[in-house]
Amino acid sequence: MKITKDLYTGSLALLTDFYQLTMAYAYWKAGKGDQEAVFNLFFRKHPFNGGFTVAAGLEYVVDYCRNFRFEKKDLDYLKEMKAPDGSPQFEKGFLDYLSEMRFSCDIEAVEEGTIVFPNAPMLRVKGPLIQCQLLETPLLNILNFQTLIATKAARITLAAKGEPVLEFGLRRAQGIDGALAASRAAFIGGCTSTSNVMAGRLFGIPVSGTHAHSWIMSFETELEAFEAYADAFPDQSVFLVDTYDTIQGVKNAIKVGEKLRSMGKELIGIRIDSGDLAYFSNQARELLDQAGFPNAKIVASNDLDEYLISSLKTQEASINVWGVGTKLVTAFDQPALGAVYKLSGIKSPEGEWIPKIKVSQQSLKINIPGIHNVRRYYSAGKAVADMIYLEGQEVDSKGTVIIDPIDATRRKRIMPAFYQSEELLKPIFEKGKKVYKCPDIQSIRKRTQDQLKTFDKTHKRLVNPHVYPVGLEENLHHLRMDLVLKAKEIEDESN
Amino acid sequence: MKITKDLYTGSLALLTDFYQLTMAYAYWKAGKGDQEAVFNLFFRKHPFNGGFTVAAGLEYVVDYCRNFRFEKKDLDYLKEMKAPDGSPQFEKGFLDYLSEMRFSCDIEAVEEGTIVFPNAPMLRVKGPLIQCQLLETPLLNILNFQTLIATKAARITLAAKGEPVLEFGLRRAQGIDGALAASRAAFIGGCTSTSNVMAGRLFGIPVSGTHAHSWIMSFETELEAFEAYADAFPDQSVFLVDTYDTIQGVKNAIKVGEKLRSMGKELIGIRIDSGDLAYFSNQARELLDQAGFPNAKIVASNDLDEYLISSLKTQEASINVWGVGTKLVTAFDQPALGAVYKLSGIKSPEGEWIPKIKVSQQSLKINIPGIHNVRRYYSAGKAVADMIYLEGQEVDSKGTVIIDPIDATRRKRIMPAFYQSEELLKPIFEKGKKVYKCPDIQSIRKRTQDQLKTFDKTHKRLVNPHVYPVGLEENLHHLRMDLVLKAKEIEDESN
Repeated sequence: MKITKDLYTGSLALLTDFYQLTMAYAYWKAGKGDQEAVFNLFFRKHPFNGGFTVAAGLEYVVDYCRNFRFEKKDLDYLKEMKAPDGSPQFEKGFLDYLSEMRFSCDIEAVEEGTIVFPNAPMLRVKGPLIQCQLLETPLLNILNFQTLIATKAARITLAAKGEPVLEFGLRRAQGIDGALAASRAAFIGGCTSTSNVMAGRLFGIPVSGTHAHSWIMSFETELEAFEAYADAFPDQSVFLVDTYDTIQGVKNAIKVGEKLRSMGKELIGIRIDSGDLAYFSNQARELLDQAGFPNAKIVASNDLDEYLISSLKTQEASINVWGVGTKLVTAFDQPALGAVYKLSGIKSPEGEWIPKIKVSQQSLKINIPGIHNVRRYYSAGKAVADMIYLEGQEVDSKGTVIIDPIDATRRKRIMPAFYQSEELLKPIFEKGKKVYKCPDIQSIRKRTQDQLKTFDKTHKRLVNPHVYPVGLEENLHHLRMDLVLKAKEIEDESN
Repeated sequence: MKITKDLYTGSLALLTDFYQLTMAYAYWKAGKGDQEAVFNLFFRKHPFNGGFTVAAGLEYVVDYCRNFRFEKKDLDYLKEMKAPDGSPQFEKGFLDYLSEMRFSCDIEAVEEGTIVFPNAPMLRVKGPLIQCQLLETPLLNILNFQTLIATKAARITLAAKGEPVLEFGLRRAQGIDGALAASRAAFIGGCTSTSNVMAGRLFGIPVSGTHAHSWIMSFETELEAFEAYADAFPDQSVFLVDTYDTIQGVKNAIKVGEKLRSMGKELIGIRIDSGDLAYFSNQARELLDQAGFPNAKIVASNDLDEYLISSLKTQEASINVWGVGTKLVTAFDQPALGAVYKLSGIKSPEGEWIPKIKVSQQSLKINIPGIHNVRRYYSAGKAVADMIYLEGQEVDSKGTVIIDPIDATRRKRIMPAFYQSEELLKPIFEKGKKVYKCPDIQSIRKRTQDQLKTFDKTHKRLVNPHVYPVGLEENLHHLRMDLVLKAKEIEDESN
């Protein structure tokens, strides 16, 4: 699949913040454009006050990078931009540089469907400063959103305890691709199908849906409407019962169900989209059972999310299939993941990598310097800790200590001899060449399910989850502390 | 501008819910596909607990409808879809119908930048049932989101009291078009510029931006970084001062400002992106004034929204320019507008329009039957009430009463003799032919500003606004009540 080819016309190189272009220009003017740098993409806090996050969006990133070039229409637009004095904003030499620029970075990233944690890089870009900089905004746009939605979907499907969750958020999603990317990420996170037919075509996700209130209203009576629908889809009869009166609607569905049965067909189910879902689903179940339709499913929808689904489960509502829309595709209770993309090292003209630190007023915002990898340790098949460490750093049999990047009093001893381990960052591009094959979407969805199984259920609790340990390998911790103290000294001297 | 041509490859006909296609098929099977129907698009509650809403997205709708056709790749996909028994989901005759279908509806809609209110149609579609149905989801997707963001932007720019508001939400927006459409709608709502270069190119919005922390960190010292930036953009020097220490950053900006001045250039300003914005902006203002830079602007950013801007204004923070991102482009505190699209009438085989009602368990969800227009009344240039009325209904000089659609005790007498009036729904398409010229985006933005001026400031208050009167003309009110009672009778009989 090539999303930027199937969905969008041509290059999306201009899908970036203008300051990336002004910086690119200034780097070029300063002769630093091709200086090598390394940037990490990570988030600082799980969304939804949760205990885990599901990485998603890498396939879009792969696509974006493969199509990353400035085309004539892009360059024409930049050429026309004016500085305040009316002169061209950018010199011709710079536009020529852009027009000849070809993606040549190394990218390492966690695979889609991987469970990820705060502060550990989800993706790392190494390459010419200008390219790294221009990629910042689109990579954040893509990964922030899809990761957010995959996580929300995983929470919702956990709440549904294995029952099907249908995603139908297109009408309330944030824009066209806000819907398409959400359908993709929701499936990765665990949804069963989407209502979005275009997402079905583009991504190979199963699509589903039956009829709306308008179908019922376009007929004289509800019964007539159900009958006409059953005529068109005798094997797919799920009737929406709440257009006029839910109980009467269930009775009408049963009438048509009896007719279907006399033709050798079966009533598949009913859908309730309003009112008290606990009350009406139980009433409907009773009516259906009494009428001899114990296998007819009850689909419920209406502003559902993980909390409402949990509550309906606690109340023993008779719901078998969950339809979710708005709350899922907009991640309603937290509609943005705040992942960031930070410079952590730069290569000196002498060819030496210099780790970089940003000392902020907010200590949470102090970055992790250097070039890192992330290793996950397992004990008896269960994930026990993630370690962020300097590339090339060996951890010998005596083990090491990992230290929480925010609270240095939180530490955990790692004894590799007792654990299995896995490197989370996989090579995706080497010098601009793709070296990774994106899995099909069914495999990604399965990866999410498999990964979730390796975490203790207390980390997956919807509210107040148990915190999973993620820390800096001790050498990295010391490097960071030294750089922070040195930066603060320099400031003090210069004050 | 053709968004679906400039941005997307080919048709977006499949950008709809699957149930629209199953209903279309069942309408076709029932011989009702070309029966004429009328649908209204409206919302039930202002977003953000506000007192007004800014309509946006119509140009996307125009574009969508003009490009509305099923292409080979769409039909091939539908052809491959299977029913549960393995037979094709759709008969060939239906796919032929879709392949020959050409958009032929009438559409009336409020212009972009119009202030709109709950329950009054923002858009009305009249045409063949199948087309009306297929358009439901994309029209909702487009208008829900852009209207939401334009409204958020209007609230934020009202809070900024005329000072520039820069939108830079791309990295946290919900997908690619979630960002592009948000930039467009934010500009319509009142923002001054966007950081999104592609939105600049596609929509003709001014773009702005300077540099990030990574620019500073890529140099040995902050001072060096500011100097290099000033070299590249001597007329556009806005320095980000909080990479290491904000106060020291301001001092470095002043040093470079003095150097610029010695070259006949001026320091444009500084940007603060972290820490206590009230405290640091006032400290920075003092330092800049003392150093002889009273005209240097202070740009602030960091999770700003209308509430935080109001609070900073109350605290007399020295901020001149406001940068907003996440909270604006995702409409963070309410990331979806719940607009709906409801059948309100259908033409009988005899050619008579039959008004349609949906009686819900929730009385808020009872629709308004018939074919409506919306008229706004003004007194001395101020908007005083919106009246929803049956098309063709005359309101004579004796006047009428408008009745709140939710609370029938809320009524207002309309005396046309004392008012000016304006019809809000304008013809956009007639029998599928475009009869409306979309204004350029600067004119739309101006319309928002002009419209806002016609409303009393109490309706524009951010919290607990004064409710603007919108009601059903009395004949429409009576029609609705009669139909509700009749529908309830029918239900009671059939129970």
